[in-house]
Amino acid sequence: MKRIYLDGNSLGPPGPDLATALTRFVEDEWRADLIGGWNGHGWWDLPLTLGDRIAPLVGAAPGQVVVGDTTTVLWFKLLVAAVRLRPGARWIVTEEQNFPTDRHVIDAVAAAHGLSVEAVPAAELEGALCGETAVLALTHVNYRTGARHDLAGLTRAAHAHGALASWDLSHSVGAMDLALDSAGVDLAVGCTYKYLNGGPGAPAFAYVADRHLAAIDQPIPGWVGHADPFSMDETHRPATGIRRMLSGTPHVIGLKALGAALDSFDGLDLVALRSRSVELTERFIAGADARLADWGFEVVTPRVADERGSHVSLRHDHAWEIVQALIGAGVIGDYREPGLCRFGFAPLYLTTDEVDEAVDRIVEVMRAATWEPFSHVARPTVT
Amino acid sequence: MKRIYLDGNSLGPPGPDLATALTRFVEDEWRADLIGGWNGHGWWDLPLTLGDRIAPLVGAAPGQVVVGDTTTVLWFKLLVAAVRLRPGARWIVTEEQNFPTDRHVIDAVAAAHGLSVEAVPAAELEGALCGETAVLALTHVNYRTGARHDLAGLTRAAHAHGALASWDLSHSVGAMDLALDSAGVDLAVGCTYKYLNGGPGAPAFAYVADRHLAAIDQPIPGWVGHADPFSMDETHRPATGIRRMLSGTPHVIGLKALGAALDSFDGLDLVALRSRSVELTERFIAGADARLADWGFEVVTPRVADERGSHVSLRHDHAWEIVQALIGAGVIGDYREPGLCRFGFAPLYLTTDEVDEAVDRIVEVMRAATWEPFSHVARPTVT
Repeated sequence: MKRIYLDGNSLGPPGPDLATALTRFVEDEWRADLIGGWNGHGWWDLPLTLGDRIAPLVGAAPGQVVVGDTTTVLWFKLLVAAVRLRPGARWIVTEEQNFPTDRHVIDAVAAAHGLSVEAVPAAELEGALCGETAVLALTHVNYRTGARHDLAGLTRAAHAHGALASWDLSHSVGAMDLALDSAGVDLAVGCTYKYLNGGPGAPAFAYVADRHLAAIDQPIPGWVGHADPFSMDETHRPATGIRRMLSGTPHVIGLKALGAALDSFDGLDLVALRSRSVELTERFIAGADARLADWGFEVVTPRVADERGSHVSLRHDHAWEIVQALIGAGVIGDYREPGLCRFGFAPLYLTTDEVDEAVDRIVEVMRAATWEPFSHVARPTVT
Repeated sequence: MKRIYLDGNSLGPPGPDLATALTRFVEDEWRADLIGGWNGHGWWDLPLTLGDRIAPLVGAAPGQVVVGDTTTVLWFKLLVAAVRLRPGARWIVTEEQNFPTDRHVIDAVAAAHGLSVEAVPAAELEGALCGETAVLALTHVNYRTGARHDLAGLTRAAHAHGALASWDLSHSVGAMDLALDSAGVDLAVGCTYKYLNGGPGAPAFAYVADRHLAAIDQPIPGWVGHADPFSMDETHRPATGIRRMLSGTPHVIGLKALGAALDSFDGLDLVALRSRSVELTERFIAGADARLADWGFEVVTPRVADERGSHVSLRHDHAWEIVQALIGAGVIGDYREPGLCRFGFAPLYLTTDEVDEAVDRIVEVMRAATWEPFSHVARPTVT
């Protein structure tokens, strides 16, 4: 039975040549040249060179994207930097039911700087902004529902109040065209192990708009972000440009794996990629409406294409059991609280036939279901 | 000409089977099981399982060491946590000429919390402590000189004033026996790409003594350090135990490479490892005294074995040119400001014959030297 992988929005698959690329790194770079690899093989600059390969995927000119750390750590750095760019401001505004790690960091940064958090439903975000808002901090595509914010519109709204806009693109990048520069976004982060296929826990990326680079002051100054690292200067003088966002030594193996994964995206037509994503999600929603509604499924993802990302979530009273049964039937999705079956449609590699087959198998699973709860099964997935 | 690698204190070499281990990870785990690898192959717990394999290398009982992030980020987390454990304290005490990234973070944490930094020569550290010291934050072995602090003695001195002791073990771990638990150390970090051979920029580790785990409050709360990550709870409730030090999703590829490297250390007799290190450094110092002093070299590393780590630095007016010429002669050391040729003696794989041969080649290089400055050569190495 062919596996249908609808969880590339959580962890993308490896490319066909990855093991070869890693072997080449270990043998021809690290073993062959040891410490000489830092310059000789460009390891030292990988956070910047990979950043410039991600830049077109988010609609950014070169020199504004850097790769390193985890999404959580970069989100922390950006939010502290945002608060420092808006002295005297009192609020961080976000959506309630943001991804937990984004929210945890928002709460921690607010508490550490004497700010308060206003967390409201999506429809109330604009109304929650005021002249004392430091930053509007949002995830572009909701990890649960797949609902997508109007990135340009909300960025404009934040700016109208003098606030910054900081976006988490984890559930967007690699599945659609994005336009950070033209939308005037200030700050952004994104995950590289979902649609970008960089590998489990691959290093994240951060975007800082050019106009902020001279003044941005991140909270974890490290030697790799120093203006002259090998001077071994005890006083931190931040590097010019996006390099200043770096702290410790780059995770080269993870960066190499990401570099190999990005080969699939170099020069890709992102508008066509987005069209494909819309085609796949539309087809799945249509299938769900036609064949799954009678089985008790409710589509919670917006039906208007512009208002969603690249995954679709179905609410069901037995969502947890259904996701487990589907894994047995070769359809890999995941469960998200509360009561959601979540299916990701990575436009880079999924076909419409796979979408149809997935709907068929969901119907088969429902026909065979007895609804014994499977609460003893460990919950297996990672966003 | 056989290469003699005296820079394993900066970047250790890969083990013989690493490429095979990585291929197995990519093909048999990630490609085969995709998202199922998080639980099915233990990826989710790698920061803890690897931590427990590093624990004996630093003299720690299980449950106190975790792997993830960079040394810089973990050092930041620990120092903020230390300051929070000592409300009302006013000072962070450190050694002047600490490794820059350690110092940058100390300065940043102090500034963000309204504390001041007292940076003094090694001999004055005890005298700099007072009842208002939050934390004594030191690197165990100086990256430049190889001088090693009395970890137990200084930890006791800090405690006598009510301060915490936080140690950076980057230039120690994997080259000697360490005894964090019995010395009563509070907090520690370490690098895994030097003597532990985890790969360029491999994830770092943090140690938090058992007695602090219930109260420790780190500044970057993330979903991976949550008590119940898959509840997707918006309020951060820190996990019990060392897991709470984690923030974002673990860098699995980097952790896998580190796991393979740690195979060489599992069950190793660390006292014998340290004896070997002392033998190697002693032999090099003796060679330098006997054969290099006349060429203008001065040994700046302590001659008393207990007072040094596993690298030896020689001061010379032409240190930069000498290090470059030695690379041409197959002896890989590195240059450190100001005027130091630094040679690391990784006890896991270096032989006394290599030490002797290195001294021979230094003499040869000096005989051939013309001392044209090579200032056009890019400085190539990373600590």
